Amino acid sequence: MMADHAKVQRLLKTARGQLDGILKMVEEDRYCIDISTQVMATEALLKRVNQEILAAHLEHCVKHAASEADRQQKIDEFVDTLGRILR
Amino acid sequence: MMADHAKVQRLLKTARGQLDGILKMVEEDRYCIDISTQVMATEALLKRVNQEILAAHLEHCVKHAASEADRQQKIDEFVDTLGRILR
Amino acid sequence: MMADHAKVQRLLKTARGQLDGILKMVEEDRYCIDISTQVMATEALLKRVNQEILAAHLEHCVKHAASEADRQQKIDEFVDTLGRILR
Amino acid sequence: MMADHAKVQRLLKTARGQLDGILKMVEEDRYCIDISTQVMATEALLKRVNQEILAAHLEHCVKHAASEADRQQKIDEFVDTLGRILR
Repeated sequence: MMADHAKVQRLLKTARGQLDGILKMVEEDRYCIDISTQVMATEALLKRVNQEILAAHLEHCVKHAASEADRQQKIDEFVDTLGRILR
Repeated sequence: MMADHAKVQRLLKTARGQLDGILKMVEEDRYCIDISTQVMATEALLKRVNQEILAAHLEHCVKHAASEADRQQKIDEFVDTLGRILR
Repeated sequence: MMADHAKVQRLLKTARGQLDGILKMVEEDRYCIDISTQVMATEALLKRVNQEILAAHLEHCVKHAASEADRQQKIDEFVDTLGRILR
Repeated sequence: MMADHAKVQRLLKTARGQLDGILKMVEEDRYCIDISTQVMATEALLKRVNQEILAAHLEHCVKHAASEADRQQKIDEFVDTLGRILR
């Protein structure tokens, strides 16, 4: 993975901590909308993680491909991922 | 929270476990696209959690509101959440 | 439909005008990213239309349901729509 | 734009026709959820248009860049678009 490992790990650990917090909110039977708000905040964090990873894939794997065939494969994989994002 | 606590907790714990797995993939410097795929799988899980929570909010908090004023407040809160989802 | 008809029609006509503009950009063989930006702007408009419609559905159809059975049906239909949005 | 013009134009014209249909539904004061369903169908079409355009940008503009500097610019523009999609 070509993205900044420290940054990605920090975002993932923050997301994991938020899930612990949400589990606690469910246990405490907190209000639905408050829990939903936290779930969406964690989703937003994961989107940032995905942005870091996919941007680095383009910057490194696609840009510095070993060959044209390698570049094509890296682009094909990215286009497939983009399809799932845009679905 | 009016949603099925056990179901929501199970989904959240699965998502948490996936984040542990993704952190391990980053540590092992796995391929970008494979990690991105796992991040999006976790996002999909969180969307399911949100669906459970918001559906139960409508079924219980809105449907069985204590008064018309209470119902209006519950609807207003939901509409605000819907705005953030559709943004 | 309980949403403000004039507002929804205005937003839809703006979106339709944007599609005409995008068709022209394609004809003029304009740059991919510029066209993509316009397509996403039109998507954002349609999300605002959907927000108006669904908020009014809650405010009127759910809140002023003729009976509890009617309210349940209106809520079921909304929950189904929410599921498609969150997918 | 490097995407298949005919395909993109066909998708855009279908979306435009759907907007005409939705405007008619509003005029006829059709049911909220039915109109919302059509709006989301048109959104899905626009996502397909965006997928065609962005995939072709990668396949052509990025892959067949005139120089490394040109490739970097094309990648930067794509990463910016990806950020808006993932927001």
